[in-house]
Amino acid sequence: MAQKAVGVGLIGCGTVGSGVVKLLVEQAEWYAQRAGRPIEVRRVLCRAEDVGPHTAQVPEGLLVHDLDAFFDTPDMDIILELAGGTTFAKQVVERALQAGKHVVTANKALLSAHGPELFAVARQNHAAIAFEASCLGGCPVITAMQFNLAANRISAMYGIFNGTCNYILTQMTDQGQAYDEALADAQQLGFAEADPTLDVSGGDTMHKLVILASLAFGARVEEKHVPCEGIDRLELVDIGLGAEMGYEIKLLAIAEQTDAGLTLSVGPCFVHADEPIAQVKSSFNAMSLYGHAVGHTLYYGRGAGQMPTASAVVGDLINLVAGSYGALFENMATWPDQQPAPKLADLDRVTARYYLRVNALDQPGVLARVAEVLGEHGVSIAAVNQHEQSVGQFVSLVVITHEAATGAVRRAADDIAQMDVIDGEPICIRIIDMPEG
Amino acid sequence: MAQKAVGVGLIGCGTVGSGVVKLLVEQAEWYAQRAGRPIEVRRVLCRAEDVGPHTAQVPEGLLVHDLDAFFDTPDMDIILELAGGTTFAKQVVERALQAGKHVVTANKALLSAHGPELFAVARQNHAAIAFEASCLGGCPVITAMQFNLAANRISAMYGIFNGTCNYILTQMTDQGQAYDEALADAQQLGFAEADPTLDVSGGDTMHKLVILASLAFGARVEEKHVPCEGIDRLELVDIGLGAEMGYEIKLLAIAEQTDAGLTLSVGPCFVHADEPIAQVKSSFNAMSLYGHAVGHTLYYGRGAGQMPTASAVVGDLINLVAGSYGALFENMATWPDQQPAPKLADLDRVTARYYLRVNALDQPGVLARVAEVLGEHGVSIAAVNQHEQSVGQFVSLVVITHEAATGAVRRAADDIAQMDVIDGEPICIRIIDMPEG
Repeated sequence: MAQKAVGVGLIGCGTVGSGVVKLLVEQAEWYAQRAGRPIEVRRVLCRAEDVGPHTAQVPEGLLVHDLDAFFDTPDMDIILELAGGTTFAKQVVERALQAGKHVVTANKALLSAHGPELFAVARQNHAAIAFEASCLGGCPVITAMQFNLAANRISAMYGIFNGTCNYILTQMTDQGQAYDEALADAQQLGFAEADPTLDVSGGDTMHKLVILASLAFGARVEEKHVPCEGIDRLELVDIGLGAEMGYEIKLLAIAEQTDAGLTLSVGPCFVHADEPIAQVKSSFNAMSLYGHAVGHTLYYGRGAGQMPTASAVVGDLINLVAGSYGALFENMATWPDQQPAPKLADLDRVTARYYLRVNALDQPGVLARVAEVLGEHGVSIAAVNQHEQSVGQFVSLVVITHEAATGAVRRAADDIAQMDVIDGEPICIRIIDMPEG
Repeated sequence: MAQKAVGVGLIGCGTVGSGVVKLLVEQAEWYAQRAGRPIEVRRVLCRAEDVGPHTAQVPEGLLVHDLDAFFDTPDMDIILELAGGTTFAKQVVERALQAGKHVVTANKALLSAHGPELFAVARQNHAAIAFEASCLGGCPVITAMQFNLAANRISAMYGIFNGTCNYILTQMTDQGQAYDEALADAQQLGFAEADPTLDVSGGDTMHKLVILASLAFGARVEEKHVPCEGIDRLELVDIGLGAEMGYEIKLLAIAEQTDAGLTLSVGPCFVHADEPIAQVKSSFNAMSLYGHAVGHTLYYGRGAGQMPTASAVVGDLINLVAGSYGALFENMATWPDQQPAPKLADLDRVTARYYLRVNALDQPGVLARVAEVLGEHGVSIAAVNQHEQSVGQFVSLVVITHEAATGAVRRAADDIAQMDVIDGEPICIRIIDMPEG
């Protein structure tokens, strides 16, 4: 019964690393019982320049600052990469894999930029990479796809992948806060970094979409395939006008398998308020996935934070110890390094419905002229909303289009922007009509 | 590269069985590529008395009616039990396991009644039982717990486990249909059986709770541990009065780890309308799970139906072929046969908030007398709602209690029922306050 312990090495000891150590120490006996073998942390690598407030929580004698000293540790079978970034992290992950050690990582930027390459290194060395923590730690989306939904052709994925953005949008929607105010609140509560660029620009969401869409659609998706728009230019007026028409604003990662190929994008979208994904509030994350047999499934949980991420890291670790993840990695041919390049649809021709708002001069004939330009581009109008209140000489004129080619809508918006009766750039937000599921 | 095919035998060829055959035939090449080995259906057992409309869809030459002929089929490594029921199904599952064959089953009644016994037989014969399809086919709740949430101590589970009941309650809530009318609609749409007893009594929900709570709480939960109430006596008036106070009615399976032990129950409950689980509409299922590290997670999808169930069966099958499920089953000590009996809390002392409605004589002093009886039992009142409209001499008087011992509330309700100013039995519905997550 007394099985040999599995030795684990941690790289990085910040928020997540210290959460992982906490779990492994506090629940050691229980995990040993569950996984069939004790799991022991043998070494924690924290570069001298990375020593921080959490480093003190590392049990005595485990901490090293030197890379060689770390890798020279005997009986270290599994490496947990929690350092973040793409340079040092890539170096240590490659070194671990080349030594035949399994790697668990929470690093979405690394896998988004170098996933297929690293998976290939793993495969050459009969090692595995486990990465549930890299995307929506608290939602088991990777295992769901690789394990449960294995029988399904996936047709569409819609995700709220960034808790910072979802918190800000929830505050704007439910509390009427302006963007800057909501961001400041998020920073004060620890939901946003001092430099929030990676989150609010949609970049973090895009990293996760690259990883998850690769798995869902069996294609080697790359960052350059994903047009990406953030939430930092969203105005309260559009959130309010959308709400009047029954829509909720969300920063969505979108991947859809169409007849013309795969479409990928990240950007603010309107979703019907009664869709389950519209109910995802505050810093929670969620993913809606549509499979040809299963229909609509949705996964909801915390996407980030110390313990939800540590939960995913340790879950992967336990499954590596039990051998279930290793078998999945070795025998299922569903990993990014094994996939062909995606056949991408021409985004210009992809059709969708749009919300279009312009600041129009409050005078006769303007709506007719806007409608005429839309018509010239083949964009037909489903609904119009213009309030009586005007700001100075201008009024907010909202047009909801019928389904139209994205390129045509953009060109129409460009033409409208040139009109002498229009002030500034038109605001153009996609409306998502979820599939029947 | 040309790996030997895995042979599969199907027992039962009704709705789900024919869905499984459809997937395995249509996607044969793709599954072979994903799982690393071709998967071939070698035999389909359909007893003479079970031949039905779906039997004709079985590919020629595969169908047998005789149990021995079925089990004599060579190279049949995995058995899919889709017959249902607990007698014949138990016999064939045992026989398959004793022959060292893995079993995939969608049969919740079987596992609820005989799970630990069958898991033990599997273990003795180095075979595995995979059963994602038995509980909420379209929501990967079993794998989520066994795989992703492996690092978590689960504190609470709240589930909508029955699509028939949820459809009926959604119709009552959103369309104002009476119970009988909503049930008739559900039957017409195929969401309810001709005899809906197992669904509307809460029995089907209870079966799933027995299976899922065993996994979540590491305890050998049995059917006798779960007090069970159905939806068949719910009145529209209570759904409306609850809605006025911000609550939505749901048939919930509940398991909570309290200091006094595990509490288990199935029954109609009020949940706050803004909780994610309150948004689960129509025939969809969902499970909210709270882990000590991950916090709140929710899984949403179709719980039944031909293709969602077939999706779960084939997902399990692919993971058995890939070896990942076998490793999980063999090496993780988290299965019902490996668990001790649960330490159950005394339900009488478990505290909760309650909605209490009585038909009270519309005369002075009645509210005072009802309040007095509640007070005598130590139940304190949080809110009262009495409308001006009365039916004959009687009015609906609703009391929302503060948190109180369940037994005390019941005894107070019994005493109130005896009062000469009260007509009929008080209606008593638990209000769920979800944990912070």
